[in-house]
Amino acid sequence: MMNTAETAPSTDTESNDNSAAPRAVDWDNPRVSAILSAAAKCFARKGFSATTLAEIGKELGLRKSIVHYYFASKAALIHEVQSYSYHKYLDKVKDAIRVSGDGSTTRMMNALGSLWEVVQTNKTGTGLNIEVWSASRRDPELKRRAANLQRDARKLIREGVSDVLGSQAQSFPNVDALSTLILATVNGLAVSDYLEGEEVNAKEAYDLFLYLLKLGLQQYEHQGPQA
Amino acid sequence: MMNTAETAPSTDTESNDNSAAPRAVDWDNPRVSAILSAAAKCFARKGFSATTLAEIGKELGLRKSIVHYYFASKAALIHEVQSYSYHKYLDKVKDAIRVSGDGSTTRMMNALGSLWEVVQTNKTGTGLNIEVWSASRRDPELKRRAANLQRDARKLIREGVSDVLGSQAQSFPNVDALSTLILATVNGLAVSDYLEGEEVNAKEAYDLFLYLLKLGLQQYEHQGPQA
Repeated sequence: MMNTAETAPSTDTESNDNSAAPRAVDWDNPRVSAILSAAAKCFARKGFSATTLAEIGKELGLRKSIVHYYFASKAALIHEVQSYSYHKYLDKVKDAIRVSGDGSTTRMMNALGSLWEVVQTNKTGTGLNIEVWSASRRDPELKRRAANLQRDARKLIREGVSDVLGSQAQSFPNVDALSTLILATVNGLAVSDYLEGEEVNAKEAYDLFLYLLKLGLQQYEHQGPQA
Repeated sequence: MMNTAETAPSTDTESNDNSAAPRAVDWDNPRVSAILSAAAKCFARKGFSATTLAEIGKELGLRKSIVHYYFASKAALIHEVQSYSYHKYLDKVKDAIRVSGDGSTTRMMNALGSLWEVVQTNKTGTGLNIEVWSASRRDPELKRRAANLQRDARKLIREGVSDVLGSQAQSFPNVDALSTLILATVNGLAVSDYLEGEEVNAKEAYDLFLYLLKLGLQQYEHQGPQA
């Protein structure tokens, strides 16, 4: 994989810099953030098409016209909810992978354990992700934003992994593949958990993943990469 | 995880036995299977709600009334497409994990390589999966069917893994977790590939996964499990 996260031109400045130019929608306005949070919950629960602006307003005891005042259309609200939820998610991922520990492998395992907690406690995020993936085929702008989300999350994971691996990271050839794999596994297990609930022990599968990863890192520490 | 695939009562006999009682919809009827395949493509491309029965008929040069003759409603067609695509998918998974090789670890790697090919060459399947996951929250019957699909696929993978591990399988404590992990990783990487396309090298990430798995199996062969 190319280092796309670093070399690709950014087409979405908000996604890369929280303190960028003033936004059309002010996330610091309590009413705006309340609407965005309520919309995220409704969308995650019922999907985009089955949710009306009136229902979102109702969650907050607001009239539909108030929601309309802040968001001209449902499409605009969907895009904004996606950006908003995704920033909150990335902030949590950032915190998670900063978890410290004793050795590099231990730190890595702690960080990835925290990443799992973030995903597990964020059922709305999983529901919203699935809705975004589905709607992406009908909405190129949403797909672009979803791809940016994935890219930024991978980049964060890669930075965390590189940080944990320290001087080893430069010689570890698969840090990109590793971050892609970690994100995909977390996403896939979140879907299993969402679909099957108690029937599947996603945590146990994730722990096995961490165990395999630990073996791989130890192997690499001792012997260098083997393919 | 409980051995749900074996002990849970089956509520969907078609999903467990291809030669079960006669079906209301005859998959052996060439026109029926043509409609189901065309519908799968349309649904994967545009989603359930944006696809009309008329469009599906148009793909085959059939009038909408002919599609209606076989499928009373779009909801009925969606459920049938999901069952149909899923059986075709499971048949391919079955074939894939029966791939043989020299040693047990080599066989396992061959089988999992084939599983990847199945998923990669089945973009319609990925699109349809995402649509099913999304629609599941509004359609409990679809969710039940989607959970069955996951369960059956996990069961097949677990059987394949057990077969490959041979006598080791009985003492390997994490075969359930392993099959859950394999399915989730494949699903997650298929989503990455669908969303980001060339930006992400899903195959490279999957190869890394197989490498980690191989290390784990070798470790287990030599030293028994370590957690």
